[in-house]
Amino acid sequence: MATQIEETLKRIQTSDGVIGFVIVNNAGIPIKSNMDDAMSVRYAGLVQQLIVTSQVAIKKDDQNDKLTYLRLRTKNNEILVIPDKHYTMVVIQKPTGSRSPM
Amino acid sequence: MATQIEETLKRIQTSDGVIGFVIVNNAGIPIKSNMDDAMSVRYAGLVQQLIVTSQVAIKKDDQNDKLTYLRLRTKNNEILVIPDKHYTMVVIQKPTGSRSPM
Repeated sequence: MATQIEETLKRIQTSDGVIGFVIVNNAGIPIKSNMDDAMSVRYAGLVQQLIVTSQVAIKKDDQNDKLTYLRLRTKNNEILVIPDKHYTMVVIQKPTGSRSPM
Repeated sequence: MATQIEETLKRIQTSDGVIGFVIVNNAGIPIKSNMDDAMSVRYAGLVQQLIVTSQVAIKKDDQNDKLTYLRLRTKNNEILVIPDKHYTMVVIQKPTGSRSPM
């Protein structure tokens, strides 16, 4: 992978509250991760499903619209999903700020 | 619906950048909305699918974890999904801030 990506990954891993990351290819396979295999595969699966569901729904509404990112906040974690052309980046972090997004 | 909810809705509708909202019950039916019927039903459907996919994936990872909210950012819109016990609140707004969440 390009140096720029390596640098971004380093920056993310040393950010406050970041628990882990996974990079998933378009076939749903984790290709880079700092978590164990079981966790990486689990997040890769979650993300594939979420992206497919979102993209279908978004495109149904507006053929030219596209998912930029998805943020899943749970009681214990915050999961960031950033899809790109060939890979999807998943970052798992400890939630920050207040509970409500409004 | 309680007065508190009505007041929250009023506050949301007058917030900067808010395009619309829908409140969906657990059966996936829009029960309150400021958009037309077709749009309300479309968002209700999107949200049902996303919540189910997310909840299943989250609970697979940790039985005690729970979805607090979901934020979908697309090229043109930002969709906020806030599930609660009986209803799910969906707010559609114009995106604010930078493109990247990191």
